[in-house]
Amino acid sequence: MEKYKLIIIGGDAAGMTAASKIRRENKNCEIIVFEKSEYVSYSACGIPYFISGKVASHEELIVRTPEEFIKKHKIDTRILHEVIEVDTDNNQVLVHKSDDKTQFWESYDKLLIATGGKAFCPDVENRDADGIFGVSTLRSGIKVDNFIKNKKPKNAVIVGGGYIGLEMAEALLIKGLNVLLINRSEEIMNTLDPDMGALVNNAMTNLGVKIYAKEELQKFEADKNGVTSVVTDKQTLKADLVILGMGTAPNTAFLKKSKIKLNEKGAVVVAKTQRTNIRNVWAAGDCATTTHLVTNKPFYIAMGTVANKTGLVAGKNIEGGKAVFPGVVGTAVCKICVYEVARTGMLEKQLKTLNIDYVQTMIKTKSRAGYYPDSKDIYVKLIAEKRTGRLLGGQIIGEEGAAKRIDVLATALTYKLTLRNIIDLDLSYAPPFSPVWDPVQTAARKLITLLK
Amino acid sequence: MEKYKLIIIGGDAAGMTAASKIRRENKNCEIIVFEKSEYVSYSACGIPYFISGKVASHEELIVRTPEEFIKKHKIDTRILHEVIEVDTDNNQVLVHKSDDKTQFWESYDKLLIATGGKAFCPDVENRDADGIFGVSTLRSGIKVDNFIKNKKPKNAVIVGGGYIGLEMAEALLIKGLNVLLINRSEEIMNTLDPDMGALVNNAMTNLGVKIYAKEELQKFEADKNGVTSVVTDKQTLKADLVILGMGTAPNTAFLKKSKIKLNEKGAVVVAKTQRTNIRNVWAAGDCATTTHLVTNKPFYIAMGTVANKTGLVAGKNIEGGKAVFPGVVGTAVCKICVYEVARTGMLEKQLKTLNIDYVQTMIKTKSRAGYYPDSKDIYVKLIAEKRTGRLLGGQIIGEEGAAKRIDVLATALTYKLTLRNIIDLDLSYAPPFSPVWDPVQTAARKLITLLK
Repeated sequence: MEKYKLIIIGGDAAGMTAASKIRRENKNCEIIVFEKSEYVSYSACGIPYFISGKVASHEELIVRTPEEFIKKHKIDTRILHEVIEVDTDNNQVLVHKSDDKTQFWESYDKLLIATGGKAFCPDVENRDADGIFGVSTLRSGIKVDNFIKNKKPKNAVIVGGGYIGLEMAEALLIKGLNVLLINRSEEIMNTLDPDMGALVNNAMTNLGVKIYAKEELQKFEADKNGVTSVVTDKQTLKADLVILGMGTAPNTAFLKKSKIKLNEKGAVVVAKTQRTNIRNVWAAGDCATTTHLVTNKPFYIAMGTVANKTGLVAGKNIEGGKAVFPGVVGTAVCKICVYEVARTGMLEKQLKTLNIDYVQTMIKTKSRAGYYPDSKDIYVKLIAEKRTGRLLGGQIIGEEGAAKRIDVLATALTYKLTLRNIIDLDLSYAPPFSPVWDPVQTAARKLITLLK
Repeated sequence: MEKYKLIIIGGDAAGMTAASKIRRENKNCEIIVFEKSEYVSYSACGIPYFISGKVASHEELIVRTPEEFIKKHKIDTRILHEVIEVDTDNNQVLVHKSDDKTQFWESYDKLLIATGGKAFCPDVENRDADGIFGVSTLRSGIKVDNFIKNKKPKNAVIVGGGYIGLEMAEALLIKGLNVLLINRSEEIMNTLDPDMGALVNNAMTNLGVKIYAKEELQKFEADKNGVTSVVTDKQTLKADLVILGMGTAPNTAFLKKSKIKLNEKGAVVVAKTQRTNIRNVWAAGDCATTTHLVTNKPFYIAMGTVANKTGLVAGKNIEGGKAVFPGVVGTAVCKICVYEVARTGMLEKQLKTLNIDYVQTMIKTKSRAGYYPDSKDIYVKLIAEKRTGRLLGGQIIGEEGAAKRIDVLATALTYKLTLRNIIDLDLSYAPPFSPVWDPVQTAARKLITLLK
């Protein structure tokens, strides 16, 4: 077992998965984790459910505490330590301690960057006012929870209609707040095509969320107590709580001066081995790029699954292995009250940009046999390459049992299956689970007729 | 459009799918459907739910009536007409009319055999007694329903622990009967490996079904009112209702004297085009063989999905097309009260017979993020080829949301994916739907360690 000193920057999914993997394989190496917040190894995706009260306490989201890592796994886990600079010429990082405000340089033999992402927000007036939150870290989630408990806000404005925005909309509805949502485009969820996004718009409106579409954030207004309103290009909306839901940006500002290559969005550019352009430096999780397996091009996506998988691959390779993370097809799911939303692959607008000739269809059918009780509407949209019939993307909206069907489409995309291949799949059927033709196959049957 | 006279024997899923497809493409040909019972085009898989009362009436299971086919689709649909002989030398079939007991020969240019399957029963004493039912046709389902309403039976014995047996056990529990189940092997559901079957045994026992395992049917006892008991090799069980759940046998007795090739179980042997050994004669659905895509060998399975798909392929080819049904991987799902059971691919015992060196594992994990409310236990068993890591089979048992995950494994089997491929799939994740590693990936991660 090789002796070396590894520094990991960031102690959530990617960082701690790597740390644990390395420690399982190597008892000799020194592993130091610098984590900016008080928390490591938690489910960031669970934050909306803790805020809504579906999950009783933030502690349930924590997989392992810093103490467990230190004592049980001999991983030197230092919370409240923020790395503010990386010097790859001299193999050292500059660390800021938030408790005593001191700084020190720490050297490494190998370095893993796993700083995750943060809620994106444009640089507008009062963006740092009290009452404005992203919810990408457990610390920020706890802040929102405390804010709701102590300040009892009444009017929440969610800026942006991405997954986190929608999940937070549900959470805040459950907490009894008025929930408004402003969204730059016509339909919320820009990871869906507009026809499917419109269904989500309707569902959210039915749940009681007031949506202001085609409105852009201009600034926030605030007084000494914090945010008071959100100003868009069309109106001013009263707000005593604002949630940023405009997507995730990689947490890499501290790397700007380093020699580590970042892409135009600031994500660390990595190979499929998770190695950066610098020898002995790896990156994994929401701070790094990945590959889109449909386009075979670099791609940025902030996703818990990818953080875990890339953390594992980085861990193996830091330990001298030859693992690769092939990439993603852009699969994502989201639940808002009874509604399930799922997507994978490419959107129409992306295909237009790439000048790929495609066909598409959207069908409405039932999630179970039509006669079976509680059979619900399910909408499936498929997009395929016109020339070959190869699947390029899929989107599903429905109620219970709808979303997980996206996994077959994700598998189909990965292995470049055609509509004919999908129709021929031996998918499971019994009346409580599906119509005799699974909805994804019904959509494929309709779409294949458009190829001719 | 070619002019020809087509006879279709059997008017359910396969036959009417073919008839409808042909009529859509060809307005000129003559299509005659001979159906033994009063019903065509219904969901046989829905029968247990109509008997339980979950589905209010048997009429809800009917997709189209004979009248609709006759008037709207110009398909000459003749109910109560049973074909009792096929003469392929002279291109004619002998038809028995059950209303006036007359017989006649009808000639054809093309013939489709789609007579489906029936509940298998060994040739034991009193097997035709009143109160003993298979439930493979709507007519038989209605008979059971009427029997329960009129005779008010108290003690039901289900002979055999296959899908239909289990679904009927649920239905009869709902109707308030005492339900006993006798089963030849130790565990019910012999389409699962014994370790997974044991979980189904436990679940059924918890629901109130008394299971007598390793008991074999010897005979039935009956008096003038019908069945009175089921005699096994170990005991005599009081029964005023018996359901046959020992599997499905192809309905092909009327072909024994013909030149159409049947396999050892009596299923019509067909090519992937659904054509039989005789020119201008096709077969589809539960009366025909198919191909197992894992072994690439002929395979018999009675499944609504296969009936629909093979009916469609037969229809296209009768109309001069070049369609093929590639085959199945043996996917099946079943719901019994809250329990979901799913399987695909090969069992351990089948692999032993084939002398294939395999590894297997069974894991227990959660269906959703562990902290999410209503997260339930889910068991996943995977079997892979030891030399290559290629997936060979999968079995899943759990509660809501468990079973449909089998579809990813069915897709993986079809495209010969390895455990590594499965681990790398971009499957969907959000806390209400899955742990961050989907249970099928967690099982693959465990099993891959056994390859080394």
